Amino acid sequence: MKNKIITFGEIMLRLSTPNNARFTQTQSYLATYGGSDANVGASLAVLGIAAGIVTTFPNNDIGQAATESYKKVGVDTSKINFEGKRIGIYYVENGAAMRPSKVIYDRADSAFALAAPKTYDWATILKEATWFHFTGITPALSENTAKACLEAAKMAKSMGLKVSADVGYRSNLWQWGKKPIEIMPALVELCDIIVCSKSDAKDMLEVNSDELNPNFASFCKIIMARFPNLNKIINTKRGQLSASHNTLIGQCYSNGKLLKTKEIDIPNIVDRIGGGDAFMAGFIFGQMKEYSDQKSLDFAVAASALKHTIEGDINLATEAEIELILKGDTSGKLRR
Amino acid sequence: MKNKIITFGEIMLRLSTPNNARFTQTQSYLATYGGSDANVGASLAVLGIAAGIVTTFPNNDIGQAATESYKKVGVDTSKINFEGKRIGIYYVENGAAMRPSKVIYDRADSAFALAAPKTYDWATILKEATWFHFTGITPALSENTAKACLEAAKMAKSMGLKVSADVGYRSNLWQWGKKPIEIMPALVELCDIIVCSKSDAKDMLEVNSDELNPNFASFCKIIMARFPNLNKIINTKRGQLSASHNTLIGQCYSNGKLLKTKEIDIPNIVDRIGGGDAFMAGFIFGQMKEYSDQKSLDFAVAASALKHTIEGDINLATEAEIELILKGDTSGKLRR
Amino acid sequence: MKNKIITFGEIMLRLSTPNNARFTQTQSYLATYGGSDANVGASLAVLGIAAGIVTTFPNNDIGQAATESYKKVGVDTSKINFEGKRIGIYYVENGAAMRPSKVIYDRADSAFALAAPKTYDWATILKEATWFHFTGITPALSENTAKACLEAAKMAKSMGLKVSADVGYRSNLWQWGKKPIEIMPALVELCDIIVCSKSDAKDMLEVNSDELNPNFASFCKIIMARFPNLNKIINTKRGQLSASHNTLIGQCYSNGKLLKTKEIDIPNIVDRIGGGDAFMAGFIFGQMKEYSDQKSLDFAVAASALKHTIEGDINLATEAEIELILKGDTSGKLRR
Amino acid sequence: MKNKIITFGEIMLRLSTPNNARFTQTQSYLATYGGSDANVGASLAVLGIAAGIVTTFPNNDIGQAATESYKKVGVDTSKINFEGKRIGIYYVENGAAMRPSKVIYDRADSAFALAAPKTYDWATILKEATWFHFTGITPALSENTAKACLEAAKMAKSMGLKVSADVGYRSNLWQWGKKPIEIMPALVELCDIIVCSKSDAKDMLEVNSDELNPNFASFCKIIMARFPNLNKIINTKRGQLSASHNTLIGQCYSNGKLLKTKEIDIPNIVDRIGGGDAFMAGFIFGQMKEYSDQKSLDFAVAASALKHTIEGDINLATEAEIELILKGDTSGKLRR
Amino acid sequence: MKNKIITFGEIMLRLSTPNNARFTQTQSYLATYGGSDANVGASLAVLGIAAGIVTTFPNNDIGQAATESYKKVGVDTSKINFEGKRIGIYYVENGAAMRPSKVIYDRADSAFALAAPKTYDWATILKEATWFHFTGITPALSENTAKACLEAAKMAKSMGLKVSADVGYRSNLWQWGKKPIEIMPALVELCDIIVCSKSDAKDMLEVNSDELNPNFASFCKIIMARFPNLNKIINTKRGQLSASHNTLIGQCYSNGKLLKTKEIDIPNIVDRIGGGDAFMAGFIFGQMKEYSDQKSLDFAVAASALKHTIEGDINLATEAEIELILKGDTSGKLRR
Amino acid sequence: MKNKIITFGEIMLRLSTPNNARFTQTQSYLATYGGSDANVGASLAVLGIAAGIVTTFPNNDIGQAATESYKKVGVDTSKINFEGKRIGIYYVENGAAMRPSKVIYDRADSAFALAAPKTYDWATILKEATWFHFTGITPALSENTAKACLEAAKMAKSMGLKVSADVGYRSNLWQWGKKPIEIMPALVELCDIIVCSKSDAKDMLEVNSDELNPNFASFCKIIMARFPNLNKIINTKRGQLSASHNTLIGQCYSNGKLLKTKEIDIPNIVDRIGGGDAFMAGFIFGQMKEYSDQKSLDFAVAASALKHTIEGDINLATEAEIELILKGDTSGKLRR
Repeated sequence: MKNKIITFGEIMLRLSTPNNARFTQTQSYLATYGGSDANVGASLAVLGIAAGIVTTFPNNDIGQAATESYKKVGVDTSKINFEGKRIGIYYVENGAAMRPSKVIYDRADSAFALAAPKTYDWATILKEATWFHFTGITPALSENTAKACLEAAKMAKSMGLKVSADVGYRSNLWQWGKKPIEIMPALVELCDIIVCSKSDAKDMLEVNSDELNPNFASFCKIIMARFPNLNKIINTKRGQLSASHNTLIGQCYSNGKLLKTKEIDIPNIVDRIGGGDAFMAGFIFGQMKEYSDQKSLDFAVAASALKHTIEGDINLATEAEIELILKGDTSGKLRR
Repeated sequence: MKNKIITFGEIMLRLSTPNNARFTQTQSYLATYGGSDANVGASLAVLGIAAGIVTTFPNNDIGQAATESYKKVGVDTSKINFEGKRIGIYYVENGAAMRPSKVIYDRADSAFALAAPKTYDWATILKEATWFHFTGITPALSENTAKACLEAAKMAKSMGLKVSADVGYRSNLWQWGKKPIEIMPALVELCDIIVCSKSDAKDMLEVNSDELNPNFASFCKIIMARFPNLNKIINTKRGQLSASHNTLIGQCYSNGKLLKTKEIDIPNIVDRIGGGDAFMAGFIFGQMKEYSDQKSLDFAVAASALKHTIEGDINLATEAEIELILKGDTSGKLRR
Repeated sequence: MKNKIITFGEIMLRLSTPNNARFTQTQSYLATYGGSDANVGASLAVLGIAAGIVTTFPNNDIGQAATESYKKVGVDTSKINFEGKRIGIYYVENGAAMRPSKVIYDRADSAFALAAPKTYDWATILKEATWFHFTGITPALSENTAKACLEAAKMAKSMGLKVSADVGYRSNLWQWGKKPIEIMPALVELCDIIVCSKSDAKDMLEVNSDELNPNFASFCKIIMARFPNLNKIINTKRGQLSASHNTLIGQCYSNGKLLKTKEIDIPNIVDRIGGGDAFMAGFIFGQMKEYSDQKSLDFAVAASALKHTIEGDINLATEAEIELILKGDTSGKLRR
Repeated sequence: MKNKIITFGEIMLRLSTPNNARFTQTQSYLATYGGSDANVGASLAVLGIAAGIVTTFPNNDIGQAATESYKKVGVDTSKINFEGKRIGIYYVENGAAMRPSKVIYDRADSAFALAAPKTYDWATILKEATWFHFTGITPALSENTAKACLEAAKMAKSMGLKVSADVGYRSNLWQWGKKPIEIMPALVELCDIIVCSKSDAKDMLEVNSDELNPNFASFCKIIMARFPNLNKIINTKRGQLSASHNTLIGQCYSNGKLLKTKEIDIPNIVDRIGGGDAFMAGFIFGQMKEYSDQKSLDFAVAASALKHTIEGDINLATEAEIELILKGDTSGKLRR
Repeated sequence: MKNKIITFGEIMLRLSTPNNARFTQTQSYLATYGGSDANVGASLAVLGIAAGIVTTFPNNDIGQAATESYKKVGVDTSKINFEGKRIGIYYVENGAAMRPSKVIYDRADSAFALAAPKTYDWATILKEATWFHFTGITPALSENTAKACLEAAKMAKSMGLKVSADVGYRSNLWQWGKKPIEIMPALVELCDIIVCSKSDAKDMLEVNSDELNPNFASFCKIIMARFPNLNKIINTKRGQLSASHNTLIGQCYSNGKLLKTKEIDIPNIVDRIGGGDAFMAGFIFGQMKEYSDQKSLDFAVAASALKHTIEGDINLATEAEIELILKGDTSGKLRR
Repeated sequence: MKNKIITFGEIMLRLSTPNNARFTQTQSYLATYGGSDANVGASLAVLGIAAGIVTTFPNNDIGQAATESYKKVGVDTSKINFEGKRIGIYYVENGAAMRPSKVIYDRADSAFALAAPKTYDWATILKEATWFHFTGITPALSENTAKACLEAAKMAKSMGLKVSADVGYRSNLWQWGKKPIEIMPALVELCDIIVCSKSDAKDMLEVNSDELNPNFASFCKIIMARFPNLNKIINTKRGQLSASHNTLIGQCYSNGKLLKTKEIDIPNIVDRIGGGDAFMAGFIFGQMKEYSDQKSLDFAVAASALKHTIEGDINLATEAEIELILKGDTSGKLRR
C-alpha cells in the first residue's frame, strides 16, 4: 500500500539550555526545530513513510535553516510557504529529578499565524496524500490558521484521506477571539482518529467531565456518540515519577473495545518533549501498515518510549529499533 | 564630580553563531544581551561610572536572565519595567574576510515596544542622574517608545541633565506610522551632543545631502544652525577592509572647530557589533571626566577599537587598557 | 518585615571537570565561585531577600570575575574587601554511581585568610542587617579569620541581629594553631540557630559522643544546656544510595521538641555541592518570613533537594519552585 | 533553461581537529562529509540548481548520516547506492600562519572503491540531467571506479549532456594497477570543460612540460590540439602567503582566447578545503545561466573566495552573496 | 614480587557521539583509543603494574596520537610497531534507558591486521615480562594476527610467563578463512587463566552447549577436562536492566570449586565499554599481588563496576578506589 | 651522538580562557601545564631527544594529571618529586589585535617552591644526561629553589654536562629575600650558553645598561668578559605589531661574531606563550646535532615561529616541519 502523510501546523525554533542549565545560567542554547504536527510527519519520514509538512516560514536564513532540518530527515518540504517576518520560538530549560523542565513560548504573530488561509492550495498539496494530520494547536493560533485547518481537513475528507488529530488543549493559546468549543467540534467531525484525554474533551469539545467517569472506555463512548465519524480514540497514561523517570501505558478505544498496552518504564530520560507526537506517529505507522489496533498501539508506545532517549522534537528511532522494544527487549544491551 | 547616566532603549537577546558558522550550519547559539543605548550605559558602568538602564522586559526567566547580565557588570537595573510577553531578538552570523556578518532582527511587538509611555516615571528615574542618553532606534520602534523617549528627554533637559543621542537611521525600522523627520528633530533639539553621519542627517533630520558637501565641518555647521542647542557633533569614519579588518578615525565638531583622531588599525576583529556604542560611551566618559574634546575623542576611538576585540555588545575594556592605547601602545604585548 | 542578611567567609574559585571526566582526563574546567557562607547569602538573594557577602578577594581580574558572579544574582558586593594575592581554589571531579565526587582544596594563604581582622568595619557593614551568618569554616582558616568572625558575631549580637552558624567540622582545616574547641564555643554562644551534627559537636564543641546517644533530641538537649542562648538546632540526615542518588530528611530541635520532615528522594543528582547551604538558606528564609518551624524546615529540605538538580554552589531555585515541592509535587512534570 | 547536474565520485567522512589543534592534541573531531565531485554538486544545489550525487555508501548509520548531510542542502540523494562495509575517511589538522593544514587519507577499500561498475544504471541516472561532472580522483581509486566513470561519461556524452572534469592529479592515489596516462585521456576526450594545471597535464595527460612553456595560453593550445572535443580549460592561480592568507586569480582558455579575473585577496581563511570545487561549481553555474565566459569566470572566483570563509567542504554561499563580491564589494560590511 | 604484563592485540580509534546523540545527529565525535587487550594492559598500568602493549600502528599522526594516549597513563609503548596504512576505527553511539549503545566497526585491513608475524620479536619483547595476555579478537582478525598470537603465546609459555586470554567470540570477525575452532583450542591450551562464557565455549572451543548445563561449575569442569593446563576460568554475569543500569556478579572456577561475588549494582552508567577488560585486569592484579582467588575476584568485579562510571575504554580507577568498593562502600559519598 | 637533557624548574597549571574571552566573561578554562624550563625539555622530547624534567608536584590528582601531560609527549617523568600541597597556577586571558593577552600568576608557596634542596639527588638524576637547562625563574622562586638550582648546575658542570640558562628577569618574582644580582652571577658562571637580553643583563647580572650600547655584539662582549666560561649568548628580537601578529629575528654571539637570522613573519598567532622556550629548545637541538651556530639559530627561530601556531606551552612541531620553514617554505600550503 502506498502511503503519504501531510501534516499542517506551526514549526518553531527550539532553544534549549545545554545539559541541565537554568535559563539564568546558560551562555548558549542548542538550536533545533519542532512543532507538534511536524514532529508526527518527521517521525514517519524516519520510519520510511512519505511525509510532507505544510507550514509558513519567514523567507530568511532562519526559515531556511528550519527547512533544511526537515529535508535532512527526508521530509518533503516543497509545500512550505515562505513569507512573513518571524519564526515562533520556544525556550526549553532542562529539568532533572524533581525539578521540571520549563518551556517559555514566544510564538505570537509568527509567519505561520499571520499567513492567510488562501496561501495554501490544499487540492494540490493533498493530491498524492493518503493521510492528513493536525493538532489542536493549529486552530488555536489565529483565525487564519483555524480557517486554513478547517479547509484542509474538509478537502482531505472530500478527497478520501484518513484524517487524524491530536486534540490537545493548551490553555495559554486561543487568544484570537474564539473559544475552542466554537472551533474544534467542526474539526473533530472530520476526523477518523484522535488523541484525546478527558481534560482535552472538557475544554475542547465541551463534554462534561462528570459524564466522563468512571473510566476511559465510558468516556470514549460519549465522545463517539457525539462524533459518529470517529473510528478510534487513543491516548497515553503517563506515570510521572520525576523529570528523569516516567512510565507510559497506551490506550485505544475502537469498535466498542478498549485496548491497553503493558506499562513501559522510561528511566534516565534524555528529552521528554515530542513523546506524545512519537506516539501518534507510531500509531499512524501501524495503521498505514495495516497492523491490528493492538499492534499499532504497542508500536506507538514503544516508539514514544524510545523518543524519550533522543534529543530534539523528532523521534529518530527506526522501525527495527521499535520492533526490538515491541518484542520485549528493553534491556538496552550494547549492539556490536 | 559625581556622574550618573541613564540610558533608555530596547535590549534584545542576541543569538550568535559560534566561530564562523553560517545560520544553516549551526546547532547552537551563543546567548548574550544588547541594545545600542544599554551598550553605552553598560560600557560606562565598566569604566566605573554610575549607570542605570531603563527598558521593559517580559516578566519571565528570559527577562530575568537579561537583567542579570547587566547586574553582573554593575549596572543599576532597579528601574527596569517587567511586563509584556516577549524580548526582542537579533540573530548574528559571524562573517570572515569578504563574507559580511549578518544580522536578522525579530523585534516587532517586544515588551519594550508595547509598554505604555506612562510606565516610566521619569522624574523619579532621573532624580540622581547627570546625563541622559538615547539612540534613534528608540523612537523608531513604536508610538509608545517615541512618546516615552520625548518625555524622558524633556524631563532630562528640564532637570538640567546633559542629553546625548546617537542619531542612527535604520531603514528597516520606523514601521509604526511616522517618518523619522516627524519625530527626530524635536528630540535632537533637546540634545547637547549627538553622533550623526551625513546619511543619518538626511534621513532623520531632512538636511539636504547636497548642502552637506564637501566636508564634515560644513555639514556640522548646517546641522548646528538648525539645532542651536547642540554643542558637539561626533562621528567615526570606518575603513572597511574586510569583515576581519577595519580602521577607525574619530571626528568631533565643536565651537566651530573640527577635531580628528589618528587612524587606528583594527586587524583580527573578534566582534564588531557595539563598536559605535563603545565610541559614544568613551566620549561621554571623557566629557564626564572633563577631558578636553580632543582627549575625549581620542579616548572614544581607543575604547571603540578595543571593543572590536571583545565578544558581545558591551565594551569590557577598562580605563587603564584604553589609556594604554591612547598612549600609542597598540602592540598587544603580553602582560605578565 | 524588612530582612537583610550578611554572611562572612571565604569564597573560592571552583574548577569542576565537565560531565563525569576524571581529573586526569579533562582538558578543561568549568569555572564557578562558591563558599559555604556565601552560598547561603546568594541563595537568599535568589529568594528575594536582601543579602550582602563579606569576604576578601585579590584585587585582580579573578577577584573581579568572582564579584560579578554574585552581583549577577543580586547580592550586595559593596562590602567586599580587595587586597592580597590569591583566591582560594577547589577542584571538583564529578562522580557517578559508586564513584564519589572528589574535592581537592588549594586554599592556603588566600587573600581572605590573610586579611587582617581590622579590615572589616562591622559596625558599618551590619548597620542595616537583621541577620548574620557564618560557618565553622571561617574560623578554621586562620587566626585572622577566627578573630574577625568573633568580632562580627559579637557586633551582630550587640546590634540585635539574629546570628546563625553552620558548625561543620572539616578535618583538613584548623592548621593555624588552635583547635576548634578553643574557638568554636565562644562563637556558638553568640548564635540563635545552628546546623550541627553529632560528629560536629564532638569535634567542635567537645560534647562527648557517648552522651549524645541514643537520639538527636537527647543530643540537642545536651547542646542547648551547654549553649543556653541557642534557640534551634537543625540538621539533615542524608541517605547515600550512590553519588547520583541521595535522600534527605530535615530535623529541627526547638523548644524541647524535635520536628522532622518527610524523606525526600533525590535521584539523578546534577550537583550535590551546596546542598547543605541551600538547606540553611531555606530555613533562614522561613524564619525571616515568620513561618512555623515545621514549615521552615519543610521549606529548607525542599530547597536543598532542588539544589541537587542545579549546577554550581548556589541554589537558583525560586520560592515558587520550592513551594511546589513543599506541596508534594516532586513529579518534575513539564511546565509549559 | 532547465538544468540538472549529476556528479560521480567518492564521498568521505571528514574528521577535522577543532580550532587549530594538532592531531596529537585533540580529544574530539568535527564530523562533516565531502568529496571533490559531490562538493561541486552540493554547491550547485545551494545555488538553486537541481543536483544529484552518485556514489556508494555502506548501508549503516554512518552512510545514513552522510546521505542526510546532502539531503539537508537539497541534493537529490535518491541515486546513492548502499552496499559494502566502510566509508572512506580523511582527517584534517587545521594549520595557521606558516603551519600548513594536514590531510591524512584512509580511503582504501571504501564501499565506493569496491562497488562494481554495473551497480550504476547510467541511462536511468542521467535521464533528466543536462550536465555530468567528475574528477580525476574517481578513476584513480580502483578499476571499478575507473570503469564506472568511463561508462558514465560515455553515456552522458551520448545522451547530449555537457561533460566536465577536474583533472586533478593526486600522487598518493592510482594504486590499483594502471597509470593515469592509461585512463585519463579517454575520459578527457569526452569532456567539454576541464580544470587542469600544467602539472596535472604532465601527470595525467602526458603532455610534456617543456612544451607547456612559457604560458597558460600556449599550454591550453597544446591540450586542445590533443583533445579537440574540449571547449574550455579553466584554472586558478593561488597565491600562497600563509595557511591563513591566500590570493586567487581565475583563468579560462576558450576559443583561442585567454581570459583572466582580477586577483582576489583572501585573508583570515576559515577553511581552504573545497575551494577548487567551489570554483568549478561557480563556473558551471555561469555556463548553465548562459553567462559570458568572463562573467562565469568572475563568478567562479568570487564563489571560491567565499568558500574559504566557510567551514566544511561545501560552499554555502548564495548567488546574492557571490554577486556582491562580483560587484567588487569585498568589504565584508555588516549587513543588518 | 616483580610483575610485568605484555598484551597483544589491535588498538582502534574510538569515535563516540557526545552526550546521547545519535549517529545522524552528531556534528562531532569524541576521539579516544581502545582495544580489548590493550585495555587490560592500560588498566594494570593505572594500578601501578609495569605494562607494555604490543600492536601495529600506521606511521602517521593518528598512530602517534594513539601511542601518546597510552604513554600518558604510563604504558610502555616502546615495542609498538609502526608500519602500514590505517588504524582500525570503531564508532560508538551512546544509548540511554531502553535504547542500546551501538558500535559500528571499520577495522578491516588495519595496519595491525596486515602486519606480518615476523614483525614481532617475541623473545625480546617478553624478556622482562611475567604475564602475557591476549583476547579471542586478536586471532580473529587475520591469518597474520592468528599466527603472531600463537607464536607469542608459545614463547610466553616457554619462557615461564603466566598466560591469560579473554575467549570472547565476535560473530562479525573471523572473516579470514579459518573458523575459531581451528585456531582457538591451540591457543587456550597455552593458557593458565581464561575468561569464558558458555556461548564463547560453544563457538570458540566447540564444547557442546547441552553438555554445559545445568551450571557454570559443570561447564568449567568440562572445559578443564579438555584443557588440562587451565588453572582458572573466570566470568561475569551481567544483569541488563537498561543501557543506563546493569548489575554484575563475578565467578571463578578453580581447583574444582566455584567462587562467586556479591552482586554489585551499577546505576547511572557513564560508559559500559571496557567493563569486561577492567574485570580481567582486576583479576590479574589480584593474582599478581598473590591475593586469594576470592579477593582477586572481588577486586575484579569492583574494578569493573568502577569502569562503568568512567568515559573511555580504560579503567582509570586506582587501587584505593577499588578497595573502597571492596569494603562495601558503594555510597559514592563526596570525598573532600 | 647520544644526548639527554635534564631541565629543572616549576611547572604550573595553566588556565586559559577559551577563544578570546575575557576573565570576567568565561564560564570555563582550558587546562594545560607549562613552565619555562619544562617547555624546553618537552619540546626537545617532541624532537626525539631524550629529555627528563625535574620538579616537585603535590601528590594529588592534579599533580598526577600534570605528570601525565608530560609522559604523553615522551618526557621522562621518573625523577619528579611528589610532596607538598599545591601546584602553581597561571591564568591566561587571550588577547587579539591591540588587546594584549594577560597573565595572572598564583604560584606562591607551590610544592616546587617549598621543596627542600636535598630532595633532589643530582648525582643520580644527571647520571646519563649530557645537558642541563634552567631559567632565571627557578632561583627567583624561593631560597630552596635557588639553592637546588645552584647545586644542580654545579653538579652538572662537574659531571661534564653542557649547561644552559634562559636569564629572563621577572620583576614580580624574587620575593624571597635576595636580589637577582646576589644569585644569578654564580649561576651564569656555570653556563655555556645563555639567552639574555640587555634588560635581563641589567637586572640580573648588574651590567650597566649604558655600557651595553650601542649594539648587541658590544653588549655580548661585555657579558662574556664578565663570564669567561660562556660560549654563546643568544636572543630574539620580537617585532610586536599586535597581539595577533609578531615578527622574530634570532641573534647569536659566539667566538666574537654576531650571527643573525632573517626576520620571520608570524601573522594569525594562535598562542604566543612558550615562544621563547621553543627558541631555546631549537637552539639546543641544533647544538646537540652539531649543526653550525648559524643553522642552530635558523632552526631555533623556525621552531619558535611554529610554536606561535600551536596552543599550549609546548612546541609540538616536528623536525620535518621545522626544516620546511628553514628551507624558506612559510607558505602554509595544504599538505595532502
